[in-house]
Amino acid sequence: MGKLARGIAVVGAGMSKFGAFPDKTGRELMVEAYIDARNSVDNGIDNKDVEAMFLGNFSSDIFEGQGHNGPLMADWVGLTPKPVTRTEGACASSGVALRAGIMAVASGLHDVVCVSGMEKMTDLPTARVTDALAAASDVSYELPVGATFPGLYATIATAHMKKYGTTIKQLRMIGIKNHNNGKLNSKAQFPVTIRELMEKRIAKLKEKGEAVPSWKDELDFLEDPQSNPVVAWPLRLYDCSPITDGAAVIFLAAEEVAKKYTDTPLHIIGTGQGSVQPALHDRADITTILAAREASKEAYKMAGVKPEDIQVAEVHDCFTIAEIIATEDLGFFKPGEGGKAAEEGITTRDGEKPINTSGGLKSKGHPVGASGAAQVVEIWKQLRGEAGPRQVPGVELGLTHNVGGTGGTCAVHIYRR
Amino acid sequence: MGKLARGIAVVGAGMSKFGAFPDKTGRELMVEAYIDARNSVDNGIDNKDVEAMFLGNFSSDIFEGQGHNGPLMADWVGLTPKPVTRTEGACASSGVALRAGIMAVASGLHDVVCVSGMEKMTDLPTARVTDALAAASDVSYELPVGATFPGLYATIATAHMKKYGTTIKQLRMIGIKNHNNGKLNSKAQFPVTIRELMEKRIAKLKEKGEAVPSWKDELDFLEDPQSNPVVAWPLRLYDCSPITDGAAVIFLAAEEVAKKYTDTPLHIIGTGQGSVQPALHDRADITTILAAREASKEAYKMAGVKPEDIQVAEVHDCFTIAEIIATEDLGFFKPGEGGKAAEEGITTRDGEKPINTSGGLKSKGHPVGASGAAQVVEIWKQLRGEAGPRQVPGVELGLTHNVGGTGGTCAVHIYRR
Repeated sequence: MGKLARGIAVVGAGMSKFGAFPDKTGRELMVEAYIDARNSVDNGIDNKDVEAMFLGNFSSDIFEGQGHNGPLMADWVGLTPKPVTRTEGACASSGVALRAGIMAVASGLHDVVCVSGMEKMTDLPTARVTDALAAASDVSYELPVGATFPGLYATIATAHMKKYGTTIKQLRMIGIKNHNNGKLNSKAQFPVTIRELMEKRIAKLKEKGEAVPSWKDELDFLEDPQSNPVVAWPLRLYDCSPITDGAAVIFLAAEEVAKKYTDTPLHIIGTGQGSVQPALHDRADITTILAAREASKEAYKMAGVKPEDIQVAEVHDCFTIAEIIATEDLGFFKPGEGGKAAEEGITTRDGEKPINTSGGLKSKGHPVGASGAAQVVEIWKQLRGEAGPRQVPGVELGLTHNVGGTGGTCAVHIYRR
Repeated sequence: MGKLARGIAVVGAGMSKFGAFPDKTGRELMVEAYIDARNSVDNGIDNKDVEAMFLGNFSSDIFEGQGHNGPLMADWVGLTPKPVTRTEGACASSGVALRAGIMAVASGLHDVVCVSGMEKMTDLPTARVTDALAAASDVSYELPVGATFPGLYATIATAHMKKYGTTIKQLRMIGIKNHNNGKLNSKAQFPVTIRELMEKRIAKLKEKGEAVPSWKDELDFLEDPQSNPVVAWPLRLYDCSPITDGAAVIFLAAEEVAKKYTDTPLHIIGTGQGSVQPALHDRADITTILAAREASKEAYKMAGVKPEDIQVAEVHDCFTIAEIIATEDLGFFKPGEGGKAAEEGITTRDGEKPINTSGGLKSKGHPVGASGAAQVVEIWKQLRGEAGPRQVPGVELGLTHNVGGTGGTCAVHIYRR
C-alpha cells in the first residue's frame, strides 16, 4: 500500500480560455482545452495512443441539464469507443480525476490516459449557480438554514480571525496578489489587477463629476462598499472566486512510454487524497481542513519531500481565506501564520514561496470541475519554464492542492521536472 | 497495457433492501448496504483496513438536491478522513466505480477498498424522475424532441424487431423470467411473479363482479392494456425497470491480502469498459451497443475465457429489449438471436445460460447508481453457493454487464470462484 506500481508522468497539459461564454457548450470548451493540451505535447500525441479518459465535473446535471457527460466528451474529442469515467468531488472533481488517471496507468490497465475537467456554469442566473454550488454542502443541515458557500467560508474566516488574529488586510492581500498574477495569464477570466480596477473606478467617478474617495492604495479601495461590496462578512466581492465556464486537459503516461512524447515530462512523485464531514458543525476545528492535511501527508510521504522543498504551488483559493488555510494545511506555514505570510509578500511571484502564479481561482476563474486540472496546467508551464511573464525562475518541484466544498474532499499532487 | 499489476478479489458484498423508502435518505440506505456487506465477510473486516471508498451515483444532485455525496457517504459508514471518489456513468455509475476500485488496488496505492453505489430516486414525482434520467441522453438533441428513456429504448426495440424479427412475445418472456427469479430474492423491490400478478388481478375483477378476460397464460395477461399499459410501444409497464431507492457495497482486496478475510473470495479475472455516442442518431447501428462489445472484448481477453464459458451473468435489463441486446453483445448468442434464446428458456435459472438470477433490474429494482454494484452482490452469492432458493448449482465463473444511458457507458466484469 501507498506505493505506485509504476511511475507516472504528465506529458502534456492545456486549457480553454476561462470566462463567461454564452455561445459555447461544455463540449465545445472541452474540445478547445483538448486541442490546447495536444499542442503542448512536444513530439505530438495521436488519439490512437490515448487509451482512456477521466472527466472531472461537479454538476453539468444542474448547470447544463446534461448528465452522463463522460461519453459525450469522449466523443467530441474523438476517443469513442474508449472507456471514459466521470469523477466528482465538488470543486475537487478534476483533482480526484487526476488521481483516478494516475491509478489507471499505475494499475497496468493503461499506458496513456487523458485527465480532464469541465464546467459550464454561466447558463444559469447567478442566484441559481450559488444554489447549485450549495448542493456540495450537507443539504440536510446547511442549505436549509440559508448557508451557501460564501456564508460557510465567511464562518471559517471569522473562526480563523478569532483563533489566530488573522486580519481583513491579510484576506485582501491574497486577492491583490492573485489578480497581479492573473493579469499575466492570457487564459484568465479577469486578467486585471486590483490597482487597475481602482484606477478605472477613479476615472469613472471623475468622468461623472463625482467625489473621488481618498484611497491611498488598493487596500483602501477594497474597503469601499461601492467598489467592493460585502458578500458575507468579512468576505467582499474580491475575496470570492468568480462563476466561470472552462475546461482543462492533461495527458498522463507511464514513465517508460513518456519519452515518446517529450524529453521534459513532469514526474508525478506524490498523490494524496482525503475526506472530511461536509457539514462544518460536524468538525472538531473549522480553521483547518482535515482532508487537506491527510492528502498532503500522503503526498509528501510518497514523494519523499517536505513542505519547504516545494518551489511553486497552485492552491484552492475559492475564497481568500481558503488560500490562507491551504498554505497552513500544506505545512508551508504554521497554523495561524498563513495570513501573515501573505501580508509579508512571501507568497508573491518573487517571494520565497510563490502561490497561485496562474492567478488562482480568484483571477483565472473557477469553473469548478475544471479547476483542479487547470492547476496542473500552470505547474506544467512553471516547471518547464514556459510560464512567460509570470515565470518563477528555476523551479523544479511543484504542488497542486484542490478542495471540494468547504473541504469535504481534497486532492494534493506533487510534481518534479 | 491491459494487464493488472496485481490480482484483485471480492471479499465481501451486500446491499440494502431495494424499494421505495420515503422515510430514508440515501445516506441511510448506504449504511444499510455497508453493514450487509461487512456481515458477508467471512472473517470480518474492520473499518481501519478499508483504505478508500468509491461511490457510484448517477445524480443525487437532481434526485436529492445533494451533490458531493462522496465524503457524506464515507462519513456515514465511518471512513472519514479516507479518500472517497464518486464516479458517474449514468446507470453504469457503480460498474465504473468497480473498475476504479480495481485500478486503485492494482496500482499499489491501496490494499483494500470499498466500492459502492447508491441512488435515492423516489423523493421526486415520477415524471420528474423520468426527466432526471433523461439527462443521461444527449440533451442537446434527444430531450428537446421529447425523447426520454422508455421512448429511446422503444426505438431500439423496434429497430431490433425490424432487423432480426424479434417478437413482442420474446420481450415479454424476459419480464416473466426476471420476475420469476426476483420472487426468490428477499432484497427485491417487486418479489412477485407475473403469474401472481395475473391471479391477483383475476381475483380483484371477480371481487368487483367484473368480467374476467380469457387469459390462457401470462403472455395474454401482459397484452391486456388495463393490466399492462403501453409505456412506449412495443414496451409496456412490465418491460420497464422500476424507480427504486437502494444501495450496494463491495469490498475489494489485493489477492495477497484477500485470504485474511475469506477462504472463498471471488477473483476478478476480467474488467472491460467502453463508450459510445450518447445520442442514438450518432450511431451506425442501434440494434447493438458498441460500448458493450468493446467492454466485453477487453474483459474476455484479460480473463482468457470465452462467452460460452460464463455460467451465470447479471446483465443490464433496464428494459426487456436491453437484456436481449446484452446477451448478444456479450457473445452469449449471435446478433438477433437473443430474443429467441429467451423464448426457448435458455436464460432461465435452470436453462443453459442463466441470466439475471437476482431478478435483474426489472424485478429486483433499479436504483440507477447502485445497480452495477448490486449485480456483483448476486454473482458473489451465486459463485459461493449462497443464493438460496435461486441458486444455480455448481457455478464457478460469472459475469456482470452494466450499461449507462442507452449505452453511452458500459462496464463488464468477470469473476471466478
